[in-house]
Amino acid sequence: MDDLTQALTAGNRRALSRAITLIESTRPDHRAQGTALLAALPRREALRIGLSGTPGVGKSTFIEAFGKMLTGRGLKVAVLAVDPSSARSGGSILGDKTRMEMLARDPLAFIRPSPSRAELGGVARRTRETIRLCEAAGFDVVLVETVGVGQSETLVADMTDLFVLLLAPAGGDELQGVKRGIMEIADLILINKADGDLRDTAMRTVADYAGALRLLRRRPQDPPGFPKALPVSAIAVQGLDTAWDDMVHLNDWRQAQGHFRARRAEQARQWFLAELRAGLLARLDQPEMRARLRETGDSVARGDEDPAAAAARMLDWLGAGSEPPPR
Amino acid sequence: MDDLTQALTAGNRRALSRAITLIESTRPDHRAQGTALLAALPRREALRIGLSGTPGVGKSTFIEAFGKMLTGRGLKVAVLAVDPSSARSGGSILGDKTRMEMLARDPLAFIRPSPSRAELGGVARRTRETIRLCEAAGFDVVLVETVGVGQSETLVADMTDLFVLLLAPAGGDELQGVKRGIMEIADLILINKADGDLRDTAMRTVADYAGALRLLRRRPQDPPGFPKALPVSAIAVQGLDTAWDDMVHLNDWRQAQGHFRARRAEQARQWFLAELRAGLLARLDQPEMRARLRETGDSVARGDEDPAAAAARMLDWLGAGSEPPPR
Repeated sequence: MDDLTQALTAGNRRALSRAITLIESTRPDHRAQGTALLAALPRREALRIGLSGTPGVGKSTFIEAFGKMLTGRGLKVAVLAVDPSSARSGGSILGDKTRMEMLARDPLAFIRPSPSRAELGGVARRTRETIRLCEAAGFDVVLVETVGVGQSETLVADMTDLFVLLLAPAGGDELQGVKRGIMEIADLILINKADGDLRDTAMRTVADYAGALRLLRRRPQDPPGFPKALPVSAIAVQGLDTAWDDMVHLNDWRQAQGHFRARRAEQARQWFLAELRAGLLARLDQPEMRARLRETGDSVARGDEDPAAAAARMLDWLGAGSEPPPR
Repeated sequence: MDDLTQALTAGNRRALSRAITLIESTRPDHRAQGTALLAALPRREALRIGLSGTPGVGKSTFIEAFGKMLTGRGLKVAVLAVDPSSARSGGSILGDKTRMEMLARDPLAFIRPSPSRAELGGVARRTRETIRLCEAAGFDVVLVETVGVGQSETLVADMTDLFVLLLAPAGGDELQGVKRGIMEIADLILINKADGDLRDTAMRTVADYAGALRLLRRRPQDPPGFPKALPVSAIAVQGLDTAWDDMVHLNDWRQAQGHFRARRAEQARQWFLAELRAGLLARLDQPEMRARLRETGDSVARGDEDPAAAAARMLDWLGAGSEPPPR
């Protein structure tokens, strides 16, 4: 384990992959090793960027171009995915590395697909821990992308420092297709495909979203001019530098004002509470326990026992009755 | 407690009110008494009807007219409310009894407002238990109404035998305002205000919804012709008998085919599991525990301790580590 910690801290990519596989494992002994590893890692901080975009917006192309621009500046970039749909199907057909071939071959970049075979809560835990591993391995930027299914955007925003929404050029009517809640968590809205025939439409879309952003309630964590809408073209590699400069400016301001530290502190507290709740409920998932729950559930379903009484009996048996635990 | 059980079983309304107050209490000793009471009650079954309708559809007027029609047939009717918004504000301004004055004075009717100061999960638990109390007190019909905020409709459908959606007459465009998920749980869609000037619009709305219902996937628990859309007028007291006859027909069919029993059995199993999960998480809500969670949360927020490691330490302390519990 000490070897793994050292190799990971030295930036060894195979060590990073092995560590992620460890924390993605559901085996209790791996889980314990993973927790010990996380606790032993040095505290380094990357800029954590959440990115969401609907299918067809050119997200992979954007990440590849944006990532190459960053590595071109000498920055180390990790790309992680939170995709509850791939969790259901057990992985996408085209792996993330195939999607972003150039970036995947870049020695300064590291791409890891979404953990599969897990519900959203499980994906969240593993992604949070993978971010920590990437930071310890010396990455400067950790990009967490999501497809924006259900709660996944809020979830990604809750584990990152900045949230970027990537949208396609569209008529004003479609502006409402973006839910208000998502607009409210966005720090930067990028309208992709601002090139060729779509350039004018893209510029109008930027203006539409800029107007919509001005109508939102002002947030204390924003410097003047933010949140902001900008045109980019991933294919023509345009606007990416400007977008990155804006992210850096926003982050510097939040660091100076204390917002960065306050947000990370609150995120750590919420992570701790989520882990605790998940850990308590995990007791119900142990094989012996599942058999017993099925048995008692059958008896309740037959009407032999009252649901609340059966639950109270199980809680007593679990030592989790209304008595406070011993100190 | 035996006195309360007996008085309640004899149909004493004051006993019923006292029993509901007991199970709505958050005091651990009341909770234990409530659980014991529920376990001691005789098993009687009412027809449990879930009812949802948007504000302005005339829900109170409908419940009053429908309830009076039922008591007119000699049936005992209980009306319960699930209203997460009143949970937030601590009760609606006009109490439910004021809303339904005639029904409230009817000796065969019993009206209980939504339990306040609780989150949706807590409201669900208390409503499920209140239904059981009303059944034990000899009510024939238990009507559970909800305003349809967020998840409350699914929640009510999960604790009732039939689900009725009350809608206002409207143009075809507004049909889409009803979420597909709600259409899929509806057994009967009633278009209210099918009287006077609105009668033609109401009849067209009935036809629109009947068409929409035919497009949905066929459900095994439906006899031919169901789910169904019907016109009613609460104010003119029209169509209420027909709606009730349809409910009885649907319920008789489901009883005969075994769907009724299977649904209640599955609901009881899910109730048991929900109670168990809530009971486990309730340990985190005890005063001593909250203080400790705040303390550890502060330390995690400061970065003194890793979130996952802190959670693992707390779980060990709670005796809920990865070890299976003793048999």
